[in-house]
Amino acid sequence: MKALLLNHDGYATQKPESIALEDAAEFVTLGDLDDPIPKSGEVKIRVILASVNPSDEMFIQGLYGQPRVGGNAAGFEGVGEVVASGGGMMGSWLKGKRVAFFAKPGRPGSWAEFAIADASTCIPLKKGISDIDGAALIVNPLTALAMFDLVKQEGAKSFIVSAGASQLCKLMIGAAKREGYAPIAIVRRDSQIAPLLALGAAHVLNSESDGFIKHLAALTRAEKPRIFLDAVSNQISAAIFNVMPNRGRWIIYGKLDEELPTILQPGQMIFQSKRIEGFWLTQWMRRAGLMKKLSVIRSAQSRFASGEWKTDVTAIISLEDAIERMPAELAKPNGKVFIKPNGNT
Amino acid sequence: MKALLLNHDGYATQKPESIALEDAAEFVTLGDLDDPIPKSGEVKIRVILASVNPSDEMFIQGLYGQPRVGGNAAGFEGVGEVVASGGGMMGSWLKGKRVAFFAKPGRPGSWAEFAIADASTCIPLKKGISDIDGAALIVNPLTALAMFDLVKQEGAKSFIVSAGASQLCKLMIGAAKREGYAPIAIVRRDSQIAPLLALGAAHVLNSESDGFIKHLAALTRAEKPRIFLDAVSNQISAAIFNVMPNRGRWIIYGKLDEELPTILQPGQMIFQSKRIEGFWLTQWMRRAGLMKKLSVIRSAQSRFASGEWKTDVTAIISLEDAIERMPAELAKPNGKVFIKPNGNT
Repeated sequence: MKALLLNHDGYATQKPESIALEDAAEFVTLGDLDDPIPKSGEVKIRVILASVNPSDEMFIQGLYGQPRVGGNAAGFEGVGEVVASGGGMMGSWLKGKRVAFFAKPGRPGSWAEFAIADASTCIPLKKGISDIDGAALIVNPLTALAMFDLVKQEGAKSFIVSAGASQLCKLMIGAAKREGYAPIAIVRRDSQIAPLLALGAAHVLNSESDGFIKHLAALTRAEKPRIFLDAVSNQISAAIFNVMPNRGRWIIYGKLDEELPTILQPGQMIFQSKRIEGFWLTQWMRRAGLMKKLSVIRSAQSRFASGEWKTDVTAIISLEDAIERMPAELAKPNGKVFIKPNGNT
Repeated sequence: MKALLLNHDGYATQKPESIALEDAAEFVTLGDLDDPIPKSGEVKIRVILASVNPSDEMFIQGLYGQPRVGGNAAGFEGVGEVVASGGGMMGSWLKGKRVAFFAKPGRPGSWAEFAIADASTCIPLKKGISDIDGAALIVNPLTALAMFDLVKQEGAKSFIVSAGASQLCKLMIGAAKREGYAPIAIVRRDSQIAPLLALGAAHVLNSESDGFIKHLAALTRAEKPRIFLDAVSNQISAAIFNVMPNRGRWIIYGKLDEELPTILQPGQMIFQSKRIEGFWLTQWMRRAGLMKKLSVIRSAQSRFASGEWKTDVTAIISLEDAIERMPAELAKPNGKVFIKPNGNT
């Protein structure tokens, strides 16, 4: 089968010049792999659409929290049809069904004609869910709902998100609005302000605008957000954290910028009980109970089925074009990039 | 009465060039104040010895977590004799007794002939406790025991302390050794290594030595410390945190260096569940139950009475000499500076 194969093993040995993917050929190669054979508990999936998530970008560069296996097919997430089972009741039941899946670590991923996933992690899709929504049903929606749960546990109605126009933030902003929360979204383009306000953000601030931090400081004094969900982790992030009130929590879940943040007032940790921590879906999945996970997944699927959530598309690319086109498509704001490994795009 | 009076109100309006006290005259003035009159629940204490703690240094400069009241006597902690009560059973009972005390915020502090404290916070001293140990019985010992409690709650026997030769760290290292814990102490002078090993540190590393971080990284891989108690909060601190293993917690409780730390790998928050937080005794005192506080204070007094703990003295200075001598005495390593407001020094 055709697949985009990882060029390297393990982790990056040195920090890249930029976290953003600049030259995909450095990290993946279009190649041929034997059709994968599912083992017991696994299923083989004919991939319809595969997501290109920020976590994939980091992973292929060796910057993600799990090691690469050189020569294996990349791609964490996708939608496809279960065409074979390696044994087990769940696998047999799934055969012929269209599922959202998360590829099994170390086994062939979703950037390939066929992928391998644990049967128990596949999510059979309702008819009302499009292939595009199905291909982006797991990583972003679960991250959005799990992080929004942190906000709800903390109690304050106001919270801050960076990279506010990302697909993930848009899901979170919609969910927050429905439940009476008041997200403050930080963006980098004025054109992103109106759509996010329409979606349910209480405030949208452009971090490139004059007086941004002063404006934000006035807002945080008034609204007292406790949580800052941050996908960027640069010096602007540190400045945002710096104007958060007592007990503010800077929760890092991505590193879209290569710039390293300097803590502006370490004394805030002491005297204001502020803290810096992280969120990783993989870790959340390990810790959350099965019922919690199922309820979150069910909620995500319902939100897509009802039209409350939708997936914005930047591009759908073939396997053959992916290496050349991915970097430029990923650099475009506001939507997601997909790979279509079988048939025409 | 004679007292060292605060020159300024509130907080510092700009970051000083250095956190270390360089010119005390900028922040306090030797002056006369009416003899304080205790209100209900308060006692008036004739000060025998007053501590000069790092928290005092930060406070008079407006860098501590509570606002200054210009014209009020500075000084958080001391030992003295209760000479008057403003009313209340506790105050009457304390009259004539020698007590360790923590001055009431906003009322005359310990850098004066007389101070005011809440009767309920005074600690009557056993005969076996010297004035010097009594004057340093509250802030350092309680901070040491409260932070060591965090280490015990976390579970790992290994933990890291910066400014390892400080009075506070020496208390902590002694307590840790007795309970089978293995502190890694970071110091800045080779001469501090042998004394701390003798006191009970499992390892002592000089952060100024060649290959310091490489050496520490090997140590943290082997011993897996989970907690780093940090009084310094500079770039060396950030480098120490960077080589801590999964779930490492950088707990900031002081800012002895003016350099601001840059987080070297924000991804560690995500993929290794590491975090940065703070510790403030005042906050701990608010949250801890009365029984917890009493047991910690009793434990501190017993450790001094038994000789397990002792207070190293750099200098004892009169009120008259304090402004001139404090900066140079505070700059000396390894011991504490005291002010003696009454009688000869």
